[in-house]
Amino acid sequence: MSLVIVAGAGPGLGSALLSRFAEGDYTAVGFARTATQRGPFDIRQVDLTDSQRVTTAVSALMEAHGPPKIVIHNPAGLLIGPLMETTQDDFENCWRAVALSAFILAQAVVKPMADNGGGAFIVSGATASLRGGARFAAFASAKFALRGLTQSLAREYQPLGVHVAHVILDGIIDSDRSRAWHSLDPTRMMKPEDIAEVYWQLAHQPRSTWTQEVDLRPHSEGF
Amino acid sequence: MSLVIVAGAGPGLGSALLSRFAEGDYTAVGFARTATQRGPFDIRQVDLTDSQRVTTAVSALMEAHGPPKIVIHNPAGLLIGPLMETTQDDFENCWRAVALSAFILAQAVVKPMADNGGGAFIVSGATASLRGGARFAAFASAKFALRGLTQSLAREYQPLGVHVAHVILDGIIDSDRSRAWHSLDPTRMMKPEDIAEVYWQLAHQPRSTWTQEVDLRPHSEGF
Amino acid sequence: MSLVIVAGAGPGLGSALLSRFAEGDYTAVGFARTATQRGPFDIRQVDLTDSQRVTTAVSALMEAHGPPKIVIHNPAGLLIGPLMETTQDDFENCWRAVALSAFILAQAVVKPMADNGGGAFIVSGATASLRGGARFAAFASAKFALRGLTQSLAREYQPLGVHVAHVILDGIIDSDRSRAWHSLDPTRMMKPEDIAEVYWQLAHQPRSTWTQEVDLRPHSEGF
Amino acid sequence: MSLVIVAGAGPGLGSALLSRFAEGDYTAVGFARTATQRGPFDIRQVDLTDSQRVTTAVSALMEAHGPPKIVIHNPAGLLIGPLMETTQDDFENCWRAVALSAFILAQAVVKPMADNGGGAFIVSGATASLRGGARFAAFASAKFALRGLTQSLAREYQPLGVHVAHVILDGIIDSDRSRAWHSLDPTRMMKPEDIAEVYWQLAHQPRSTWTQEVDLRPHSEGF
Repeated sequence: MSLVIVAGAGPGLGSALLSRFAEGDYTAVGFARTATQRGPFDIRQVDLTDSQRVTTAVSALMEAHGPPKIVIHNPAGLLIGPLMETTQDDFENCWRAVALSAFILAQAVVKPMADNGGGAFIVSGATASLRGGARFAAFASAKFALRGLTQSLAREYQPLGVHVAHVILDGIIDSDRSRAWHSLDPTRMMKPEDIAEVYWQLAHQPRSTWTQEVDLRPHSEGF
Repeated sequence: MSLVIVAGAGPGLGSALLSRFAEGDYTAVGFARTATQRGPFDIRQVDLTDSQRVTTAVSALMEAHGPPKIVIHNPAGLLIGPLMETTQDDFENCWRAVALSAFILAQAVVKPMADNGGGAFIVSGATASLRGGARFAAFASAKFALRGLTQSLAREYQPLGVHVAHVILDGIIDSDRSRAWHSLDPTRMMKPEDIAEVYWQLAHQPRSTWTQEVDLRPHSEGF
Repeated sequence: MSLVIVAGAGPGLGSALLSRFAEGDYTAVGFARTATQRGPFDIRQVDLTDSQRVTTAVSALMEAHGPPKIVIHNPAGLLIGPLMETTQDDFENCWRAVALSAFILAQAVVKPMADNGGGAFIVSGATASLRGGARFAAFASAKFALRGLTQSLAREYQPLGVHVAHVILDGIIDSDRSRAWHSLDPTRMMKPEDIAEVYWQLAHQPRSTWTQEVDLRPHSEGF
Repeated sequence: MSLVIVAGAGPGLGSALLSRFAEGDYTAVGFARTATQRGPFDIRQVDLTDSQRVTTAVSALMEAHGPPKIVIHNPAGLLIGPLMETTQDDFENCWRAVALSAFILAQAVVKPMADNGGGAFIVSGATASLRGGARFAAFASAKFALRGLTQSLAREYQPLGVHVAHVILDGIIDSDRSRAWHSLDPTRMMKPEDIAEVYWQLAHQPRSTWTQEVDLRPHSEGF
């Protein structure tokens, strides 16, 4: 069975991704800040901003399963606030969680993937990947950074067989937490399992038709 | 069986789309400039730039099958040449084939689709939809026009249930004709059936996750 | 004195452009649908969608003044309305006014400009050049078409010495008419003379630093 | 005399900016990593990635001159290399030099500027601000981050009177260093003084017409 790593395997989209790929006969392993038991999933506690920890976790997996076929970068990191209430630590930690973590992850996996016949590296973007809104100084800057990195990875590694895709998630993902926070009709939220299906499709695009960027939003979402 | 209309049903991608949706249990009907027999497909001769002809053809189909569930806009229209060798007729005909035809088609179908529970309207874009290159005055202008129209349709009709998606085809589509024209390794071309699969996926995205724009290119294509 | 042609020389921005370049010691000539007397300006009645009329008008000017140094494409053409209330004539006329007119104008001037040492061809874009909003099917499609054409012109003619610039006017231009139509505080509108100053600056950029696209909006405008 | 701060006041564009604003009757002060004497300019040694140092330097200037009218963010930071030869320190230092420094600078100046009647905060972007090329993992990611931050600043502070502009420098800036590195005809490079003129123009745009983003490239540059 091929290995898929979901880095940022929180409840919600993270779990839905693990679930989708497990159903599709992958060995699905999650990395998360806290390794709580969640159903049947193999979720390992890995601080994605710590390259030592990421390398160790990836090496252990590769020893057992060989290089991953699919790697998904999906940590959270949303931070909203006025410029003058955003500390330098906020700004830096947001970038570490969102962008540096992708660099560390890519360095740990893309070469073994390329050497092993290729695969897919899929990144979760957001509305803020394309538009720096007021009060999004930290988060938009971090998500822009992630998008720039993703494009560079695509241009360097796609010719070597690693498909790199960036998914713009332009809406609220349905979860207990987002239902509590937003007074939004749940039918106007994106279902984690519907998003996961798109990642599944991207991960299996044939080499003749690779997507670099795709957006997703609820049909009722203004944009 | 639900109806799918492929407007611009030439050999290559047009046929692959008809084929994919027919396999998926749709009544698949093509509109093409010339209605040559091509395998098992129901291809009707319709000049897509003639609103009278389009309306008549769509009405006939709706009488037999009800409003379409899926409509795909996929006419050709590539035109390359220096500005001073592009006649006003060239410029105008390119826009008619590429952009006006989409307006005419949309006016014929999106309201019945919205009134009938929704559906998907999918449009074939190109590299020239995003970048006006030298010698592409006519074609880039027409493809930009098509993209602007598509965005407007999405914003007006998605809240009414009609998903509007724009596919950036950033590469050469494999066909006998393109093999003859381009000295390009066929493994570096997009396979029509691979593209058709993406249209199929877009057409069936659940309302929680609709794509407005997606790009596709061969893994080896520079961009 | 060098010649500047302002195609689309209505009151408001058109007049401000004529005024700014006349002050700067250009022979400033306007083309407008109706050649009403407006102050000191030389405004000629030219239907910009009629290539015969444009060619004749440009030839007459070139005979008297030589090829223009600066050409500005600035016709109006705003059209807003739901898809189903936009007729095919509306859609087509909007494109003719906005995009075809630029093609015709470019064909009449860019080669003589290139052969005569170069110059600048500056185009007025709008918010709808970048975003196809609901109810903007015709106008956004036409403005997108204009932008694609402009990019192609830039890539073909800048190496030959003709600077091609596209100005995104993202806001309401202050005028008697717009004050009557919009219940907007005039301090939140763009002053025609402030816009004209930017066109002046673009027209005189040295070859080492040419702008292809610039946006302008009132400081209070959301975006 | 009003104060302008040029953060990133190296030879080349930095000096040209100091020069242009000094000529225009500003008190022009540069921040640079190393405070070598360069002609008549007041250049202070400030590590832009050290918020303590930046705050101290800005406070000293404000005490003497009041809040700055114009602040320009222009540090270097170019880094090119394959992903696997880019260390985590490279990636992080590039982001610190390019993006974090802008956050620190903005926090030090935009509120006093807004409280003091407004001003302009102008940021130097690059080709890599819009496109993540192969071998640009660090630099493109950092420049994307800077652009996202700049957009957020514009949307938060323009309504408060601080104009925030992002300049895409799409080409090689002429300098002794770039002449030595690139085998490029100097007539195909951007002159620092021509770029500086654009910053001057942006800094003085009236509130009715503010530019958020503008690109600049030599007329001969492909794009």
